[in-house]
Amino acid sequence: MRLAKVTKGGTVGLAVDTGAGVKALFGDAALYDLDALIASGGNALTDAGAKVSATGEDVKVEDLTFLSPLVKAPKIICLGLNYKDHAAEGGFQVPEFPTVFGRFNSSLIGHGAPIIKPASSDQLDYEGEMVAVVGKGGKDISKEDALSHIAAYSVFNDGSVRDYQLKTPQWTVGKNFDDTGAFGPWLVTPDELPAGGAGLKIETRLNGQVVQSANTSDMVFDVADTVALLSTCFTLEAGDVLVMGTPSGIGLARKPPLFMKDGDVCEVEIEKIGLLVNPIKAA
Amino acid sequence: MRLAKVTKGGTVGLAVDTGAGVKALFGDAALYDLDALIASGGNALTDAGAKVSATGEDVKVEDLTFLSPLVKAPKIICLGLNYKDHAAEGGFQVPEFPTVFGRFNSSLIGHGAPIIKPASSDQLDYEGEMVAVVGKGGKDISKEDALSHIAAYSVFNDGSVRDYQLKTPQWTVGKNFDDTGAFGPWLVTPDELPAGGAGLKIETRLNGQVVQSANTSDMVFDVADTVALLSTCFTLEAGDVLVMGTPSGIGLARKPPLFMKDGDVCEVEIEKIGLLVNPIKAA
Repeated sequence: MRLAKVTKGGTVGLAVDTGAGVKALFGDAALYDLDALIASGGNALTDAGAKVSATGEDVKVEDLTFLSPLVKAPKIICLGLNYKDHAAEGGFQVPEFPTVFGRFNSSLIGHGAPIIKPASSDQLDYEGEMVAVVGKGGKDISKEDALSHIAAYSVFNDGSVRDYQLKTPQWTVGKNFDDTGAFGPWLVTPDELPAGGAGLKIETRLNGQVVQSANTSDMVFDVADTVALLSTCFTLEAGDVLVMGTPSGIGLARKPPLFMKDGDVCEVEIEKIGLLVNPIKAA
Repeated sequence: MRLAKVTKGGTVGLAVDTGAGVKALFGDAALYDLDALIASGGNALTDAGAKVSATGEDVKVEDLTFLSPLVKAPKIICLGLNYKDHAAEGGFQVPEFPTVFGRFNSSLIGHGAPIIKPASSDQLDYEGEMVAVVGKGGKDISKEDALSHIAAYSVFNDGSVRDYQLKTPQWTVGKNFDDTGAFGPWLVTPDELPAGGAGLKIETRLNGQVVQSANTSDMVFDVADTVALLSTCFTLEAGDVLVMGTPSGIGLARKPPLFMKDGDVCEVEIEKIGLLVNPIKAA
């Protein structure tokens, strides 16, 4: 199932891409509050989607505004250096344990919304990534059980303000500027995808030019590894968002560097999961 | 005003230290939900405290269990290397911009609760810190206005699993083990303290031995600097928790290193703000 939180004419709703078109129901928070549906666990998410599929109105995608699917994630856990070729382009060793930093919900935007280039920096960079959303929490989750804890997959552009990211030993500030974390458009349930979202082509395009092209199987730590390893340290909770890292091709590592500027359009596409498109706008 | 979220006999309540003893009212979430009171802004926090002071029952501190004052902070923003002598002991330059990493709410515990030493590490370290809680959000907050955005101050023990913290370039995992972020006991409103919580003695004791002793005026970036600088990058929200960094004396930097183990007791005390005591317990 493919679900999105959308607005039409200012009213929030849940949209479902049925394959034969998009259906939506508007104005009922019990349906569109994807944070709450995932937090409540069980079949709540797919029950809401089934209701929309069965009773929703037909809508045109071009009439919808897509919101960030989740806005109250208990944790947004981003992996760094999680593709071998990307670790190498940054001069890092491939790590023995996931390199993790936190994003805050305040940085999130939806599909179609502008990624904002701050006035304070000319080093706004793209990072196309796959997302896995935790649907069932736990501690010390085994690798064998790990994928059963995932409720959905999605697409992310981990917009990074490089000079701020590298001003200090910790990347957090440069990864948390307002309106830099693009998420969506769809949450896609695992039954639609290969196990763990593996084996999918992932591509980032800036103004139509392919700047990152890889396969989700090139991750150092796949989704099951990540769930298992991180849950040895802390409790994963329903609604936690795992942003699985980016492949090589980032703008910072190019010669000359390639940064995003006002008027650009950045697309991140993951096979079978979706196409996330965001214009870039100067603050 | 000095407010705490507590339980007595399993019922949650709001306690206020009136100076002439502690009063509390139990069972009313509209009073004890400090996250919601701070999120609602204005005088909600002090109005709740005033109601408890006026109509609460007299309670003995020893009959109370203290909870983490906040458990749904939109952001928990921790500063690293924010005392000159601590930056030096780690071999870091004093930074030009706050070094920031995120904690997740899932790591928080209250005063008196055990800090858990994970089975996977023998390098559990203490870090005594001052907390400033954002009461009024904003972006691009001026340094002059910054302190008016703070609703309360508190005490924190930023329990750090050093080998995990240093396994990768980012510290996040080692700073987010379950039951390692001790917070409280009291939220103290700014009118009780010098501006910005400056000029206060801060001391950490492990089993009664003083291991950190400094003054909150020794911070590289004080509370006003931090609010002003971070809000140039992202929107601060009511309820955001700023954990202001630790002075020198951490266990990792000692020769030989001094780590916390089962049965230890760690105390962090900040003059006029409070005394945070936690036993250490092996998982």
